[in-house]
Amino acid sequence: MKYLYLVVFSLCATFTSAQNINGLENLMPWPKQIEMKDGKFRLTEGFVLGMTELTSPRLCKASTRYIERLTNRTGLFLDQNIITAADTSRSADLQIQVDRIGQVELGEDESHQISVSASGVVLKAETDIGVVRGLQTLFQLISVDKVGYYLPAVEIVDDARFQWRGLMIDASRHFHPVDVIKRNIDGMEAVKLNVLHFHLCDDHGYRIESKLFPRLNEVSSDGQYYTVAELKDIIQYAADRGIRVMPEIDVPGHASALLKAYPELGSKDTTYYLSRNAGVFDPTLNPIIDETYTFLDQLFGEVISIFPDPYFHIGGDENEGKHWDENEEIQAFMKAHDMHSNHDLQTYFNQHLFEILKKHDRYMMGWDEIHTDGISKETVIHSWRGGGQSLADTTTLFNAARQGFKSVLSNGYYIDLMYNAEDYYRVDPYFGYELDEEMKANIMGGEATMWSELVTPLTIDTRVWPRMAALAERYWSPVDTRDVRSMYSRMNKLSLVLEHYGLQHISAQEKILRNLANSRAIEPVRVIVDVLEPMKGYTRNAGGFMYDVFDPYTKLADATLADAMAARDFAYQVEDYQRGKVDSKAMMAQLKLWVGNDDALQAAIKVSPILAQAKEHSTNLKLLSEDALVAIDYIDSGKKAPKKWYKQAVSHLEQAKIQDGRVELQVIAPVSELVEMTQSKSSVQN
Amino acid sequence: MKYLYLVVFSLCATFTSAQNINGLENLMPWPKQIEMKDGKFRLTEGFVLGMTELTSPRLCKASTRYIERLTNRTGLFLDQNIITAADTSRSADLQIQVDRIGQVELGEDESHQISVSASGVVLKAETDIGVVRGLQTLFQLISVDKVGYYLPAVEIVDDARFQWRGLMIDASRHFHPVDVIKRNIDGMEAVKLNVLHFHLCDDHGYRIESKLFPRLNEVSSDGQYYTVAELKDIIQYAADRGIRVMPEIDVPGHASALLKAYPELGSKDTTYYLSRNAGVFDPTLNPIIDETYTFLDQLFGEVISIFPDPYFHIGGDENEGKHWDENEEIQAFMKAHDMHSNHDLQTYFNQHLFEILKKHDRYMMGWDEIHTDGISKETVIHSWRGGGQSLADTTTLFNAARQGFKSVLSNGYYIDLMYNAEDYYRVDPYFGYELDEEMKANIMGGEATMWSELVTPLTIDTRVWPRMAALAERYWSPVDTRDVRSMYSRMNKLSLVLEHYGLQHISAQEKILRNLANSRAIEPVRVIVDVLEPMKGYTRNAGGFMYDVFDPYTKLADATLADAMAARDFAYQVEDYQRGKVDSKAMMAQLKLWVGNDDALQAAIKVSPILAQAKEHSTNLKLLSEDALVAIDYIDSGKKAPKKWYKQAVSHLEQAKIQDGRVELQVIAPVSELVEMTQSKSSVQN
Repeated sequence: MKYLYLVVFSLCATFTSAQNINGLENLMPWPKQIEMKDGKFRLTEGFVLGMTELTSPRLCKASTRYIERLTNRTGLFLDQNIITAADTSRSADLQIQVDRIGQVELGEDESHQISVSASGVVLKAETDIGVVRGLQTLFQLISVDKVGYYLPAVEIVDDARFQWRGLMIDASRHFHPVDVIKRNIDGMEAVKLNVLHFHLCDDHGYRIESKLFPRLNEVSSDGQYYTVAELKDIIQYAADRGIRVMPEIDVPGHASALLKAYPELGSKDTTYYLSRNAGVFDPTLNPIIDETYTFLDQLFGEVISIFPDPYFHIGGDENEGKHWDENEEIQAFMKAHDMHSNHDLQTYFNQHLFEILKKHDRYMMGWDEIHTDGISKETVIHSWRGGGQSLADTTTLFNAARQGFKSVLSNGYYIDLMYNAEDYYRVDPYFGYELDEEMKANIMGGEATMWSELVTPLTIDTRVWPRMAALAERYWSPVDTRDVRSMYSRMNKLSLVLEHYGLQHISAQEKILRNLANSRAIEPVRVIVDVLEPMKGYTRNAGGFMYDVFDPYTKLADATLADAMAARDFAYQVEDYQRGKVDSKAMMAQLKLWVGNDDALQAAIKVSPILAQAKEHSTNLKLLSEDALVAIDYIDSGKKAPKKWYKQAVSHLEQAKIQDGRVELQVIAPVSELVEMTQSKSSVQN
Repeated sequence: MKYLYLVVFSLCATFTSAQNINGLENLMPWPKQIEMKDGKFRLTEGFVLGMTELTSPRLCKASTRYIERLTNRTGLFLDQNIITAADTSRSADLQIQVDRIGQVELGEDESHQISVSASGVVLKAETDIGVVRGLQTLFQLISVDKVGYYLPAVEIVDDARFQWRGLMIDASRHFHPVDVIKRNIDGMEAVKLNVLHFHLCDDHGYRIESKLFPRLNEVSSDGQYYTVAELKDIIQYAADRGIRVMPEIDVPGHASALLKAYPELGSKDTTYYLSRNAGVFDPTLNPIIDETYTFLDQLFGEVISIFPDPYFHIGGDENEGKHWDENEEIQAFMKAHDMHSNHDLQTYFNQHLFEILKKHDRYMMGWDEIHTDGISKETVIHSWRGGGQSLADTTTLFNAARQGFKSVLSNGYYIDLMYNAEDYYRVDPYFGYELDEEMKANIMGGEATMWSELVTPLTIDTRVWPRMAALAERYWSPVDTRDVRSMYSRMNKLSLVLEHYGLQHISAQEKILRNLANSRAIEPVRVIVDVLEPMKGYTRNAGGFMYDVFDPYTKLADATLADAMAARDFAYQVEDYQRGKVDSKAMMAQLKLWVGNDDALQAAIKVSPILAQAKEHSTNLKLLSEDALVAIDYIDSGKKAPKKWYKQAVSHLEQAKIQDGRVELQVIAPVSELVEMTQSKSSVQN
């Protein structure tokens, strides 16, 4: 028997059984083409990996990582350990065939084919980077039956949909040490991402060792920056995984750190300070003095000497130009040069930067705002504003692509805003406008951004992962890979795989839970946290000044995740129940657990003041769960609930909308569904 | 009312209530003198720390860490964040007074006094290192009541008992990246340790970047070594915490890594390989050629240029001299120089090293074997063999001290051997022989050793911590701080504090449990792991060749801890029950949980082959628990159990001694106690 699962997922939310069959439930990003076969390749201690054509250091290292992960995952004492160029057995169980050594650069071939049969595994790719991608699939394929570990027999043909599949990490607002960056690169490897965009200079600090401008380290970093050696180490670490690293120095706004060290380059004669809060700040480079360009030429040159990638990000966002408006010389200069707005002046500034970067052999990339008349078409436009208020707005991306600019989409991928994975997953760089082939070619891909005002080295993994895997699927997999339930199912299974790669998104959350519980007995805290989500968008940090970067990020909101999976699973149960697909049993078990949890949580709060923010949420969860249980009774018995009860239930739902601890209870919507169902007799579609 | 708790703990195991009163249950090491007072100092967001005398960078950094940990622990949005020399408020809540800047060197003053009252906190010390020590106590004092967080009013006078309180980390057998070392230094800070002994060269690899001898990195490190910049960073990180870092280059034996790179320095004309297993290997430097000393002079010089500490460890252990015996030139040399044994030759070698190190202004330190006639009294003897087989044997330490050598004890502190914390805790550098004051002065302290044949970056924290806190207490606290139950109680509470400092001993174990469970539902696995301990001493890795360094350390044995606390707590319950102190209720609840766990565990094994090693242990735990429940029935009802049942129970106990997965069930002894009690009618002392 032979199953053929071509990737045909409808846009509606039907459940796709192909993505849930044994052996494939960890697969993410979902491959371009996958064909199941009969049979299993058994993993044994005698497992041998061999490179049957060309070898390369990247190939050896990636193979070594595969062997190490395999032995640690399965506990098998494998014969092989460090793979070298001598491992070329043609009778190997896993044969790796590659045509050439890939370059870690935009557009490099990442395609590969995997063939697993009972007798062995073949992984073919044009480049060793394609092999790196394929090895991740081979790790995700590891399956279990009563006999032991195996890979299911399968034929996979795979390739990236977009050539730019990025994650931006902001190391300025909160600094993230090298090990944090490296484990995130490991996670990127796992899900086939290929660009780390490193945001290294902002109002909060300059994070690169500078020999030319040591004051950037002395006064503008709080002692927290990467040495040149560390950055080179990170870049090599990424290159081993086929991942580019692009630096960003954000100018002319977001310049507090630059100007604290070198105030003479500012547009205002003032004392500059490092920002400690969130927001848009006024310090701006002075675009009309030569010293600014001399400085940037040297600084960019120094950064470029570290980062080999041909792309260089100049930021360029959120310059409101207040200090330009206040500066008489700048105003006179603008008049003299017939500039009518700050946009014109910023274009003038960007044109200089374009020339500087051209001299250094770099493409200039910048956020939306640099897309003005007069800017070279060789510039890459990084769309972050979209154009409207919606997460899925691709207007600025479309405009750039239409006008012939290469562009990358980040609007809709601001994962620091803590929307649900599905909200980001639904956004597609090709959606929103009708695109011709040229425009499609101009849209290079997407990039998730982890701005770090509210994110520390302890919490960053929990904010990026596992959601990043869903976005990686958006950037890698065919456009019609869109089933949300399947995405969640695979993402949550992949979560354990990501932990094997070294990420700490599970353990970091548990660490915070232990502090909240003031004990190792975290279950009652976990139960409430699993139905809470932090306030979304820019609302948690109201006005940007509710938190500064030194505040504790170890509280209730920091323990909650962007996707409260217990609440989501419950919502799915309610949905299935409404459709008559399941009975009320599982829902009721969950509801009773929630009711019973309140006592335990209130007791925990008594020995842990930091947990007090969960108090009302727990009470509300109990009330709502009790109401839901009653509602189910009415629904199951086909009786309409009395108005008095209904009104009280509605008032409980209203009361549950509190935001104590900057978090929100996520069971309100599904419980509301149940409560509403009590008012109509035939609500369950049996 | 005022309590005075001078530290008077008897050697017997009576429970010391002083160490269990509210506010002090986290204290470890226990202070020299502590006096409880009435009142509580409330921790609030307005909390201010001020240095009222001298400041120093170390003081500012330590204070900043205190503020950061305090805010993260309590969730209080403190006004202060980065503490600078400007923070000198004399009305501060926490006033820090220090007389001089300390030196990170042996014998520096670490004493301090803490005074907490309702109105404020004063921390006085002669040196800023004393302040670093005191700040750890102030963090451990953070307590909770219904109102919030507070420090209990208390007067503490504290000082170190021993000046050398060390942890040795072996980075040769398994390499441990910088972040692993740093977080272990954080743990050392928490428990007032002051020496990191860094074992950097052994048969398995040379771990220091070498510009003079690059082959050490190219062929003798598997690519895993610390750069000079990383080591300097580690040393500064330690110095900020008042911790010395002493390097060890182990010679003339343990030389496989040196000789793989430079075989011409070997005593045998052969090809050398990096060792992959545990054991004592033959490769040995050639002590009769000048090239050896020229090489070591340069190599030591290079290492010394990185490590400022005046002590340099040359290893010197386990040289069996096989290659010396086989080398005719060496034999002729020995004859010509009237050397009668390899010990004489090694003395000759060590004398050269002594001169080399003297030239480089360093004291020579080495393991027991360097203590021979003819070695300078300026040498420090590091006692690891003890003299006999017992963990508590201090013979070689005593011999060295008696002969006027400075010495440090590590026999009895080999924590890699995975004995219980109490076994190490009972060992004391001053026990075993009668010592006069001079001999006591010669014994500088103790050092725990974490040899890393079976320890990876993932598991090292779980092997060192929290046990290391008990040893830190041995080295710091008064000799009569010996109550084992109090030690366990405080150690397990401190465990959460250590996690705040960044250690991963809790989360790393859970990571392994998730892999064993193949799921996040780890409870059944945790229940069995909590009653298992890895085989102790050198038995787990039978012959040294059962494991190599590339094997998986993610299995059942690696999930278990040196102290199976659930089993220990149960044993304490049985002990208290035997003495008539408690009834059988808690025991029975625990036993029923164990009985019930077996079904869940057997189900987990079906979806996780790596967990199969727990199968028989779980069955045995169930059988023993069932027997124990029956036994309690007999005991509680005053009836003697029938012989047939007794025989079967004894056979279950026998059968439970299996070592599947290289681990042992720890409930055998207490269950055996209960089973034996069924044979005597009046066994419970009511």
